[in-house]
Amino acid sequence: MKAVIFDEILKLEECPLPKMREDEALIKVLLCGICNTDYEITKGYMGYKGILGHEFVGIVEDVNSSDRSLIGKRVVGEINLGCGKCEYCLKGLERHCPDRETLGIWHKDGCMAQYVTLPVKNLVEIPESVSDKEAVFIEPLAAALEILEQMHIKPFEKVAVLGDGKLGLLCALSLNASGLDVELIGKHSNKLDIAKNQNVKTKLLNNVEIKPVYDVVIEATGSLSGFETSIALVKPRGTLVLKSTIASSKEFNFAPIVVNEITVLGSRCGQFKPALRFLEQKKVNFNPLISGIYNINDAIEAFRANKQKDTLKILISMES
Amino acid sequence: MKAVIFDEILKLEECPLPKMREDEALIKVLLCGICNTDYEITKGYMGYKGILGHEFVGIVEDVNSSDRSLIGKRVVGEINLGCGKCEYCLKGLERHCPDRETLGIWHKDGCMAQYVTLPVKNLVEIPESVSDKEAVFIEPLAAALEILEQMHIKPFEKVAVLGDGKLGLLCALSLNASGLDVELIGKHSNKLDIAKNQNVKTKLLNNVEIKPVYDVVIEATGSLSGFETSIALVKPRGTLVLKSTIASSKEFNFAPIVVNEITVLGSRCGQFKPALRFLEQKKVNFNPLISGIYNINDAIEAFRANKQKDTLKILISMES
Repeated sequence: MKAVIFDEILKLEECPLPKMREDEALIKVLLCGICNTDYEITKGYMGYKGILGHEFVGIVEDVNSSDRSLIGKRVVGEINLGCGKCEYCLKGLERHCPDRETLGIWHKDGCMAQYVTLPVKNLVEIPESVSDKEAVFIEPLAAALEILEQMHIKPFEKVAVLGDGKLGLLCALSLNASGLDVELIGKHSNKLDIAKNQNVKTKLLNNVEIKPVYDVVIEATGSLSGFETSIALVKPRGTLVLKSTIASSKEFNFAPIVVNEITVLGSRCGQFKPALRFLEQKKVNFNPLISGIYNINDAIEAFRANKQKDTLKILISMES
Repeated sequence: MKAVIFDEILKLEECPLPKMREDEALIKVLLCGICNTDYEITKGYMGYKGILGHEFVGIVEDVNSSDRSLIGKRVVGEINLGCGKCEYCLKGLERHCPDRETLGIWHKDGCMAQYVTLPVKNLVEIPESVSDKEAVFIEPLAAALEILEQMHIKPFEKVAVLGDGKLGLLCALSLNASGLDVELIGKHSNKLDIAKNQNVKTKLLNNVEIKPVYDVVIEATGSLSGFETSIALVKPRGTLVLKSTIASSKEFNFAPIVVNEITVLGSRCGQFKPALRFLEQKKVNFNPLISGIYNINDAIEAFRANKQKDTLKILISMES
């Protein structure tokens, strides 16, 4: 099969089919997405080497389990593979299992290939009403909705999402679709308009008075300056949700977090089932988020396009 | 009156008595404490100039209000003076009023003097059963107990307090006295013993395996390395309480906060009434925390002593 591999360099290669372990399924991938994490991996993040990709929709071709009912079904798959025995796995938090593997990120070949394997219990069947192009968004959508699993945002609270990239747009669109009072703040009117067209209030960063007026600020810029702006926008006793991994390369003062008793909440992957409900109920229109669909044969080109400014989601189709 | 003033340098000076504003009381100070914040101010923190000090016990000598019932009473005083009208003040959160003054820290002369003024509503009467030496701990004790106002720590959760200075000791002693499962981690066996003698579990940092096993970690070292160790000690989805204002002078990576979905909770001043209950019920023995009591005439010497390694709380008595 064809697969997109990172091993010091990014390459498209012909590989053997992945082998199912016990209770795993072999999935023929239809469509997969490029995430910023994939791009970060190509710059060294996690020290990962192997097949990239953790966003996909596919069809179950085989299972290594007595229950064969999923064969032929269209599925998506949760990306964390827990040990099944630790306190996190037993609470349904495989995504925090200390011994987890993570699809295309940590010790487990990813889905940017014609075939991928995943434990049967990680799979979620996709109903006919949800298209491939919608289904492939389930993983990043679940990550956006993770915020609502972690904290209670009250209907009267003011929420700002900082950053109008893919992640910021998904957070703003999904929280707004959840009935919350959301404002998306970004630097690009064309991207802000995607949210505006789906009834999200938007503001260009230049037009925002930097004052602590939001109960909740979602940092989705991935930059230290975005984090600093978020701290300045959140009310005393408010919450700053950190969705993107950032690093400070210069002096950074934590005092405002203490003085204003801000809660900084780290937030990562989420559950697929609430995200699937969003997909089924068409709560978010993902089409404007798709910047291009490339064939697997053009995967390297797809990564190049992903790096372009103004690019949102790049998808890779496995038809060959 | 004599007062300890910071104005580019630290000095003991003769000053006029402070003037009561409307609804303020004039308090004759009996005993006050030196806080690390005072020391930070002498290094430039907050850009404050004026009489230092925000920890005291005193006797009300006069009030500028129709209700004169507090005259002659022994009191302590909450240190934040809110505007009384904003959303924070109306919720009883004067300590987050954007226009607040803070005793000896921001726009309001402090209590390291023979007299101080404060709004009558900031004062809490101290019962006879509580000594001056206990009462003067109410402000830092309230700051430690603030953690329990901000978050729910469950009885089965494991709590680590990192740092065996004044703040760490007060956090460990007060949370342990609250029935929680607390371990104090520090570098100084003599300081750890103060907690150990009051039934707190203690560990030398060198003997701690740095693994994410605590549900809640209270960072009270005030150092970036302490913050990094705290992140490494807290479980995924756990809470790291930031009690001390720190700054990173080098690169700092926020990724573990996101990946492990850690909550970083900034925590500062607390309410005096719960702290008074602790004092009345003798839940904590503060005596071993007192490293010395200096007369106001020796205040500069007291600050020098405060800087010494191994010094805990230095008190200043106003008798002259």
